[in-house]
Amino acid sequence: MDAMEPRAERRGRRSGGGAARRAERTTHRIDCAPVIQRNIPNYDMLSDAALEIIEANAETVLEEVGVAFVDNPEALDRWRAAGATVLGERVHIPRGLARKLCETAPASFTQYARNPDRNVEIGGKSLVLAPVYGPPFVRDLDGGRRYATMEDFRKFVKLGYMSKWLHHSGGTVCEPTDVAVNKRHLDMLEAHMTLSDKPFMGSVTDPVRARDSVEMCKILFQEEELSRPYMISLINVNSPLTFDSVMMGALEVYAEAGQACIVSPFIVGGAMAPVSVTGTLTQVLAEAMAGIAYSQLVKPGAPVVFGAFVTSIDMNSGAPTFGTPEASKILYGAGQLARRMNLPFRSGGGLCGSKLLDAQAAYETSNTLNAALLGGVNFMLHACGWLEGGLVASFEKFVMDADQLGVLHSIAAGVDISENGQAMDAIREVGPGGHYLGCAHTQANFKDAFWRTEVLDYKPFETWADEGSRSSADLAAARVQHLLEQYIEPTLDPAIAGALAEYVARRKGEEPDAFG
Amino acid sequence: MDAMEPRAERRGRRSGGGAARRAERTTHRIDCAPVIQRNIPNYDMLSDAALEIIEANAETVLEEVGVAFVDNPEALDRWRAAGATVLGERVHIPRGLARKLCETAPASFTQYARNPDRNVEIGGKSLVLAPVYGPPFVRDLDGGRRYATMEDFRKFVKLGYMSKWLHHSGGTVCEPTDVAVNKRHLDMLEAHMTLSDKPFMGSVTDPVRARDSVEMCKILFQEEELSRPYMISLINVNSPLTFDSVMMGALEVYAEAGQACIVSPFIVGGAMAPVSVTGTLTQVLAEAMAGIAYSQLVKPGAPVVFGAFVTSIDMNSGAPTFGTPEASKILYGAGQLARRMNLPFRSGGGLCGSKLLDAQAAYETSNTLNAALLGGVNFMLHACGWLEGGLVASFEKFVMDADQLGVLHSIAAGVDISENGQAMDAIREVGPGGHYLGCAHTQANFKDAFWRTEVLDYKPFETWADEGSRSSADLAAARVQHLLEQYIEPTLDPAIAGALAEYVARRKGEEPDAFG
Repeated sequence: MDAMEPRAERRGRRSGGGAARRAERTTHRIDCAPVIQRNIPNYDMLSDAALEIIEANAETVLEEVGVAFVDNPEALDRWRAAGATVLGERVHIPRGLARKLCETAPASFTQYARNPDRNVEIGGKSLVLAPVYGPPFVRDLDGGRRYATMEDFRKFVKLGYMSKWLHHSGGTVCEPTDVAVNKRHLDMLEAHMTLSDKPFMGSVTDPVRARDSVEMCKILFQEEELSRPYMISLINVNSPLTFDSVMMGALEVYAEAGQACIVSPFIVGGAMAPVSVTGTLTQVLAEAMAGIAYSQLVKPGAPVVFGAFVTSIDMNSGAPTFGTPEASKILYGAGQLARRMNLPFRSGGGLCGSKLLDAQAAYETSNTLNAALLGGVNFMLHACGWLEGGLVASFEKFVMDADQLGVLHSIAAGVDISENGQAMDAIREVGPGGHYLGCAHTQANFKDAFWRTEVLDYKPFETWADEGSRSSADLAAARVQHLLEQYIEPTLDPAIAGALAEYVARRKGEEPDAFG
Repeated sequence: MDAMEPRAERRGRRSGGGAARRAERTTHRIDCAPVIQRNIPNYDMLSDAALEIIEANAETVLEEVGVAFVDNPEALDRWRAAGATVLGERVHIPRGLARKLCETAPASFTQYARNPDRNVEIGGKSLVLAPVYGPPFVRDLDGGRRYATMEDFRKFVKLGYMSKWLHHSGGTVCEPTDVAVNKRHLDMLEAHMTLSDKPFMGSVTDPVRARDSVEMCKILFQEEELSRPYMISLINVNSPLTFDSVMMGALEVYAEAGQACIVSPFIVGGAMAPVSVTGTLTQVLAEAMAGIAYSQLVKPGAPVVFGAFVTSIDMNSGAPTFGTPEASKILYGAGQLARRMNLPFRSGGGLCGSKLLDAQAAYETSNTLNAALLGGVNFMLHACGWLEGGLVASFEKFVMDADQLGVLHSIAAGVDISENGQAMDAIREVGPGGHYLGCAHTQANFKDAFWRTEVLDYKPFETWADEGSRSSADLAAARVQHLLEQYIEPTLDPAIAGALAEYVARRKGEEPDAFG
């Protein structure tokens, strides 16, 4: 009931071979839901008093303990000029300075896609959903667990394009380990730019690669200089309290080019932060404030997102754990802290530690997705496809999670209290002991009344048994296959596609392959 | 971090055969967490304005449409005497009367167990967790899906007793289909009374069986007349708007004996209520108010719970669906409506539609558990073990869900903002680039810092693969086995046990077996 409907667009026919599909390309459209605009309140778990303690403590951390900007004399100069005390590589930030610097960052901004229908608003009441980021392995039912390749990467981009509840094509959906480490970013960007028309992320593993990302955007968007945010990129803090020159170098490139960054403490609680929720939130806030303040020193007004990627540690094995109560509490608290800074917030995702797409994976994932929805997340990376603590991108989990993202859309739409929503005529018509299936209100509303799954099984037991007693992983594998068969590349000016291919080929030729 | 610890009690040794276990009985204790006392706010999804519309509409429904009390002339007399207009079996309740009658019901009450440490407070900020109720089938990895037997029932009661996050032994944990339908309640009650010392539920399938439940409680608690609530029982409304004489007959028995009842609209939205959230909430409120008001007509002050069991329907197959956005919205709204009446609230559970303990089961379950925690549920039936839309009680899902109930305990405990929780010494000690594993704060806190699973897998990939790449269903099966092996019956005065057995035998001899 009350579910948001995906943006209605013309659908391609379901049949036809490669030639028929190519002929269809100019008319084919794929459904994509608009970015979630929450029509429900956020869940504020922590009291104002608790948040004030955390904020005061974070200022103490920045001033007394300080943060390290490593191998980055220019950053130290910037901090010194802004009024911080720099001792060696340690930056001690006077109380209030970081928060003050963060004030020039926008409360929300638009990331532009090559298809304007796919532009996403990041901040405020919005929730943008992006796929898994970073796994070196992939897994599917057929092939099991194996190193990811560029072919896998392309398949994920296609699945993301075909997923109606996913707003974003993401970044390193998996690590294409069959391409040299100094060149794979070129192939990945080309794939996002040509196989999808949704917005995407830039490379951050080297400032040079960030510059390549900017250059390729200039080609794609046909601009001499980028005029607005076309990319959002993930800048992880090296927790605790350390900002390395690779990540900061990428941030500098992007901020100077007016491109968006997520500044994200990356914390396994108990190892990279204290073993308590309040202590971890204090460190998250200190790190986010320092990183965001630095982005504003590079370029005041640069679009930036307050990130918090926090898990806890299993004290027996040392493994990171996901979907835990501690992670949920930190997510809720971090969201409140970000909102008090009037900044967009990134956290959550379909996070899990399980090796398989089994019940453990789904409990952990769903715990995180629910907390992220109610906790006010604006940009959710890893929203689908994440498995085994982020080591694995799973094809089946990608489509199952993507289906659950429809649940988030519908909850966020809230409750319809219009006269039609009140349905008093239906209650009067049916009365005690009757049933509603045939009544006028049901007939008028049933099509859009309920969220509908594309994967889950609701069949009668006997039918399900006759069809082979398939588990949800089996059903998801069939869905993957179906989506890839239906995939048709979105149209792109061949001159642009050619220029991108040329840029990639040229840059690849300029240096030898590097691995590892 | 900040997890509630289960009530520390002496644990039995892990080894030893039957004789050793028997010798241990008088000293053996099983961990059980105290009832959840929420230290976090409830999530209020609906605005006051929306709730006021629903409340006004519910009064209109009670007055204009009315409710049916079927085959129950005494109930009609009670309503007439209270000021309602009775036309045939239809009771039209003037605006405000039902709500007024509900005011004598207590805002919270204690259900007493034979072990006083297991008493549960129902209402206010509490959350009591009880297992699945009603499935005619069971499923486990070894035996697949099959009709439930009394032996299965006893295994579930033992598992419930051994589950530290479960506060309640429940009622019809599964339907023991190998015992005559008119006698199985006697065996079920005897099992709850002897194999567990947690509180339990009474029989509702016939007023005679409710009276048996009361009589057996008199034996167990050694009272001539029951002096306080020893049972809570599930009174489903025959939605829409119908109260049948079987359920009302049981409610009358329990209310007169001062025993607690849950008055629960049982709704598959779209079939038994309108296809909209607001319309369904209107009907839920009207039904709950009418049923609770009736309980107070029978005995003012009788302890009673505002229930809402609501799913939606799959418009393709007609199957009920679980873990959907519509169900979450209704749960949140119903919780708000119950709190505005100052009544305890029952909803939620580990609900799912999946046939297997797979990812679908866990997504759906976790969606429901999370909504129930934040939505302010006070009594959660079906908290563990529910599979296939309630047709199946799953042994493996019982222990996996029960493990996730620990997550709820920990989230509900909220965030520790004490000086120790703030962990400023740890942040000062470790500083930028260090790690927290060895610091003094971690050493002092790591044991209780994080929620710990008893089922989920956090092992390194290689170890997990070497051990057979077990799914969570496999791990859960091992946990079931382990708990049943560890089980030791709680001590009970042999004279009481004997008197219960005698009562059961006598009553079974008084009438022929009935099936179906």
